[in-house]
Amino acid sequence: MLQVESVRYLKEENQIIILDQTLLPTKEEYLTISTIESLWEAIVKLQVRGAPAIGIAAAYGAAMAAQKLDVTSYEAFNQEYQAITAYLASSRPTAVNLFWALNRMEQIVKDHSHQSVAQLKVQLIEEADLIKKEDAQMCKQIGEHALTLLEDGQTVLTHCNAGAIATAQYGTALAPIYLAKERGMTLRVYADETRPLLQGARLTTWELMKAGIDVTLITDNMAAMVMQQGKIDAVIVGCDRIAANGDAANKIGTYGVAVLAEKHGIPFYVAGPTSTIDMDTKTGSEIPIEEREAIEITNGFGKQTAPDGVKVYNPAFDVTPHELITAIITEKGVIERPDEAKMRAMFGE
Amino acid sequence: MLQVESVRYLKEENQIIILDQTLLPTKEEYLTISTIESLWEAIVKLQVRGAPAIGIAAAYGAAMAAQKLDVTSYEAFNQEYQAITAYLASSRPTAVNLFWALNRMEQIVKDHSHQSVAQLKVQLIEEADLIKKEDAQMCKQIGEHALTLLEDGQTVLTHCNAGAIATAQYGTALAPIYLAKERGMTLRVYADETRPLLQGARLTTWELMKAGIDVTLITDNMAAMVMQQGKIDAVIVGCDRIAANGDAANKIGTYGVAVLAEKHGIPFYVAGPTSTIDMDTKTGSEIPIEEREAIEITNGFGKQTAPDGVKVYNPAFDVTPHELITAIITEKGVIERPDEAKMRAMFGE
Repeated sequence: MLQVESVRYLKEENQIIILDQTLLPTKEEYLTISTIESLWEAIVKLQVRGAPAIGIAAAYGAAMAAQKLDVTSYEAFNQEYQAITAYLASSRPTAVNLFWALNRMEQIVKDHSHQSVAQLKVQLIEEADLIKKEDAQMCKQIGEHALTLLEDGQTVLTHCNAGAIATAQYGTALAPIYLAKERGMTLRVYADETRPLLQGARLTTWELMKAGIDVTLITDNMAAMVMQQGKIDAVIVGCDRIAANGDAANKIGTYGVAVLAEKHGIPFYVAGPTSTIDMDTKTGSEIPIEEREAIEITNGFGKQTAPDGVKVYNPAFDVTPHELITAIITEKGVIERPDEAKMRAMFGE
Repeated sequence: MLQVESVRYLKEENQIIILDQTLLPTKEEYLTISTIESLWEAIVKLQVRGAPAIGIAAAYGAAMAAQKLDVTSYEAFNQEYQAITAYLASSRPTAVNLFWALNRMEQIVKDHSHQSVAQLKVQLIEEADLIKKEDAQMCKQIGEHALTLLEDGQTVLTHCNAGAIATAQYGTALAPIYLAKERGMTLRVYADETRPLLQGARLTTWELMKAGIDVTLITDNMAAMVMQQGKIDAVIVGCDRIAANGDAANKIGTYGVAVLAEKHGIPFYVAGPTSTIDMDTKTGSEIPIEEREAIEITNGFGKQTAPDGVKVYNPAFDVTPHELITAIITEKGVIERPDEAKMRAMFGE
């Protein structure tokens, strides 16, 4: 496999192997998880991160715990399984994808009350496998669509980490890069370090280097200059939420990159699964922007880099208006120059 | 005094007091310097930084050492003084302002061979005082001109540190901020942290907070969002070198801020003394861009934040084309919408 796997289930051992992303980029270590308590901890500590990866980990966690239930009746099994689900759901109460995955797993138990506990146990593993497989498939499709917009030999700039380790495989923004590599094409990458939490420096460079992809790290404020120098052919970023008119919320700094891309005549692509499109949010202005703690900026990396008591503004996301987006790339296809009419035609009512 | 002094000479004690900028922002400590060896070290270690501040420190260093020369003849004094100059000049062989200041001091000795050693010693102190005073005056004039472009209550975004501690007083980009404060006006500041070396986070916020000025720290990639939110009325930055057509080289990230300012209809001002204008450099493309070591990006905060062996691009400066510059602000006046004709008219042949 070209890419590192963030979450892997070992059937024989009934264990989950998780890449500990908190130790990146200096250590590549994998947690061997055999209890839901340690999985819960891994989710809380962000050792596994990225909405899809968290969902997959939780699904395997529930399946793993179910294997160990020493009951024979459906009722007893169902009752114990509810407790497992409730416990795992409490790890990150704001993670929508976590609930989505746990609900989907629970539906298996609900829908198969006629089956034996042994059969249910097998089906839960199969469902978790399916959740992972579907995610990988979806990411691959995003990559396929993105590749129609890129050419062999091009250089792409990305911001933050929308890569393989945040998903089952491939990632979203990085999917075309991996797919190109599989097909013998060459796409080079410039990665913004992505202050304050440095996902670009810590994660994007790491996973691309592991896959043998040519990646160059820059600080966020160098993106303008590399574009000015003609080094960038396209920008591709992930997204947290897309509004009905195509406005896209993503990691802080994305909007600035979009403005720079427009200035330099460089296409700006937003990649994400259709699950991030929220047709109930009319425009980006309705998307609430989380403000995070000052300490992420003032004491980012083991050292205080700003005065005590300095006033800090630390928004976690920004919104790129649809006018700056050359295309939104989903697993279902590409929406060029997105606007409300095109979005409704593809995802609406 | 509103502002911290980066370099101060104590006449009675024949000592130089230097703010140790390497300890900022967590410690405000002053070095008491009484030998040229320790001054040399302070320059090498960047304990004193900023071209004007280095020049002033070197001038006082030469004057201080001259006071201690135990000779009576002009010839002996001159010979010893040459050695002092040569030694101090070796501290930072690329610092143009250092040589400029030392040459100016040396001229005093050359021009006054008829005077007594005692008289020369006094004149050297007076010349160093004058260099400092002229720098403060020049910065104040930059501030005066900049203030004609700003209004009470406005909010200014700045990048890097072109502040009081890099000069005798006032700074360049920050001069209007201090001047406004002296006059009871209120200008608020957003400071980009300025990766990789964090001059904005470490120095700009620190000196503005010391002066009681309202400053908010953001990461470089948040500048776009605060502009989008309408929080910024003007951008003002310093400069390292201005070409004959008005193109300006400054700390990496400046060009990106200029593009963002243009997009949001925000005036973008470049402030600097006329000594930074190089009419022999036709355009910005002729300005060589220093590339610095990867470690500044990969290990910037006391902790490794990128994988071993990652490819890094680390240009120290970028060039903002004159088309993006609303005005260049010098001690001699303001050049709005600078171009070669206007530059030649003001500074030419």
